[in-house]
Amino acid sequence: MRPVHELLATLVQPADTKLLLVVLDGLGGLPVPELGGLTELEAARLPNLNTLARASALGLIDPVLPGITPGSSAGHLALFGYEPLEWVIGRGVLEALGIGLTLEPGDVAVRGNFATVEYKGDAPVVRDRRAGRPATEHTARVCGRLQEAIPAVGDVRVIVRPVKEHRFAVVFRGPGLDERVADTDPQKEGVPPLPPRSLHEAAGKTAAVAAEFVDRAAAVLRDEPRTNFPLLRGFSSLPALPSFTKLYRLRAAAIAVYPMYRGLAALAGMEILPTPGESLADELAVLGERWADFDYFFVHVKATDSRGEDGNAAGKVAVLEEFDRYVPELLRLKPDVLAITGDHSTPSVLRSHSWHPVPLLLHSPWVRPDRDAAGFTEHACQRGSLGRMRAVHLMALMLAHGRRLEKFSA
Amino acid sequence: MRPVHELLATLVQPADTKLLLVVLDGLGGLPVPELGGLTELEAARLPNLNTLARASALGLIDPVLPGITPGSSAGHLALFGYEPLEWVIGRGVLEALGIGLTLEPGDVAVRGNFATVEYKGDAPVVRDRRAGRPATEHTARVCGRLQEAIPAVGDVRVIVRPVKEHRFAVVFRGPGLDERVADTDPQKEGVPPLPPRSLHEAAGKTAAVAAEFVDRAAAVLRDEPRTNFPLLRGFSSLPALPSFTKLYRLRAAAIAVYPMYRGLAALAGMEILPTPGESLADELAVLGERWADFDYFFVHVKATDSRGEDGNAAGKVAVLEEFDRYVPELLRLKPDVLAITGDHSTPSVLRSHSWHPVPLLLHSPWVRPDRDAAGFTEHACQRGSLGRMRAVHLMALMLAHGRRLEKFSA
Repeated sequence: MRPVHELLATLVQPADTKLLLVVLDGLGGLPVPELGGLTELEAARLPNLNTLARASALGLIDPVLPGITPGSSAGHLALFGYEPLEWVIGRGVLEALGIGLTLEPGDVAVRGNFATVEYKGDAPVVRDRRAGRPATEHTARVCGRLQEAIPAVGDVRVIVRPVKEHRFAVVFRGPGLDERVADTDPQKEGVPPLPPRSLHEAAGKTAAVAAEFVDRAAAVLRDEPRTNFPLLRGFSSLPALPSFTKLYRLRAAAIAVYPMYRGLAALAGMEILPTPGESLADELAVLGERWADFDYFFVHVKATDSRGEDGNAAGKVAVLEEFDRYVPELLRLKPDVLAITGDHSTPSVLRSHSWHPVPLLLHSPWVRPDRDAAGFTEHACQRGSLGRMRAVHLMALMLAHGRRLEKFSA
Repeated sequence: MRPVHELLATLVQPADTKLLLVVLDGLGGLPVPELGGLTELEAARLPNLNTLARASALGLIDPVLPGITPGSSAGHLALFGYEPLEWVIGRGVLEALGIGLTLEPGDVAVRGNFATVEYKGDAPVVRDRRAGRPATEHTARVCGRLQEAIPAVGDVRVIVRPVKEHRFAVVFRGPGLDERVADTDPQKEGVPPLPPRSLHEAAGKTAAVAAEFVDRAAAVLRDEPRTNFPLLRGFSSLPALPSFTKLYRLRAAAIAVYPMYRGLAALAGMEILPTPGESLADELAVLGERWADFDYFFVHVKATDSRGEDGNAAGKVAVLEEFDRYVPELLRLKPDVLAITGDHSTPSVLRSHSWHPVPLLLHSPWVRPDRDAAGFTEHACQRGSLGRMRAVHLMALMLAHGRRLEKFSA
């Protein structure tokens, strides 16, 4: 079957409507013992969301497929209408986006780990794949040494940046690069690192550049007691994602505090709006200020996911309650279509992303409202008029409710 | 889109959890007048299942697609995670598995009907395609005659076995065989049987072997008053189903009384556990004894379907009530994931498989429980937190709830 985004592109028509997608990252949970067996959404006091729910259509969305736990990129691509099984963002690209690096088409981005190796003669043997998990400041210093010593390999520019603890990012930028290169991390200790082997004939140059980078880096780091060797994983380039704006003919903007989400939105062709600070108030202030300038806004709220990942159910409840207080402000903007959902569930009892379907609230003049909904909860959404569907269909629903889709076929 | 089982294979991770799938064959029905307009599930007294339902997630599954009535093999393949539209088990293979024949890769299995022909000169004309539906014992005797007279055709071994009434199975075993041979049953009377025509150049030998088998069988049977000619249908070989165990990294076992279900499970790579007798008690005794030895168990209960096919609503109710009494025994094994469902619905008012979606109960520590479910009924399942989905996704859900799937993408 043809991908949804291609179908939509053939049906899009102009309209003077404004679409607002609010992603409460990690929305959706499971019963929590210390909340009396309620989920975070059930335990939270959400007077504004609950009222809005009864004037909206509710449903549940599967980010990828039932049972599949999505990473953040898969979850967001689906919300933007891209089939997440088709468009996979590589780990290197995601790591680079996550620290705010701007990637260009043709760049090859790689995730690095600093490891500890021991030399037997000239041959390195991995002793600790994470070099004892150094502090991020330490890794920043080591990346600085590498960046200074290896600004380029031949005609390929090299960009080295710290991420967190032992993790760093490398970007190779130059002509003739290709992402099809195998990981050098042997995934166990007591063995030598692997060479960066090309997996396709087009990737020969990239593999050679990576090999020279590793050799030179190892020489530079020889005097480091622990972080003395780079292991490389997830060689990847930007996917050729068809531009969101062209597909849907929307002037689209993203308001997100974390670099990775800004990077994903930029990949989809959205304009990234700077925020004065990192709070919800800061994000919504920008939304209000720029409301006239775009047709579609993606607003990303990270803290719901962070509290879930921390296993902090009360904290997740507090974030939901904070968001609820801003709902009247959102409604004052009079979006023609407002969708409030998540990119995946992050139940605090699991302390991680999960496979559970995600609550969705869709508000527009054209919904079949769930008038008798108890509120904005997993349970109410499960019984909602939108039923359960794949997240990749949300974009079509938002466009339709914004009267931005023509009839299909005659 | 890539098949679900391939996606799962890339995500499977090891875990120390036990998964239990109970298939109540033909589960799910329609309102029955003599049950006061209730379905069999609604009419049955199911105290244990109803209590379990309120601590579980309920839903409805479509074995193939809405409106499509599945055969038993399609229904089971979907429950095992294989796309039933992609993997089709041929009729000859199913018939052979159903009588407990062990097939080997490269075998061509065929379903036979004994027919009555009249000879005009040397040319047979079909008078009765089912030879007056002879008793199975009669067919067994005739098959014995054929087996003795035709042990082989050239280098191809021939296996002939009775099935039921006029039906029998033939297996051709030898080098260079191919299933692409047309049926010889002309599907009407008063015309000659068709020759076994090859549908692909690779099947020339198989067609010639089948033609010789038919000629020699007709000669042997010339003195039979009615069962004097074999009609052949459904030439088929084992599908190259990727092994369940390799795909999901589960040590998997099947407990089933009927040969066909044992054959299907063996096809998927499960170990078939012998049962001392044919009762539910026998099956569950084996489950308890072998509980430590496997990660995944498929337990098949046939009688729900049989009573439905007989139009015996009260009998189906009785089977459900019998199963209910064993539910505490299942729970004492403490499966990490327990799924109770069917391979298709068999409403007793229809006396056949049907296209209606099938109730599903999923129990694990990580479900969103349907606390207010009335019980384990079609209606409660339709409102359940799993919503409605294709059966092919059940395997992903069971693996996810068993914490056996990594995150998809970054």
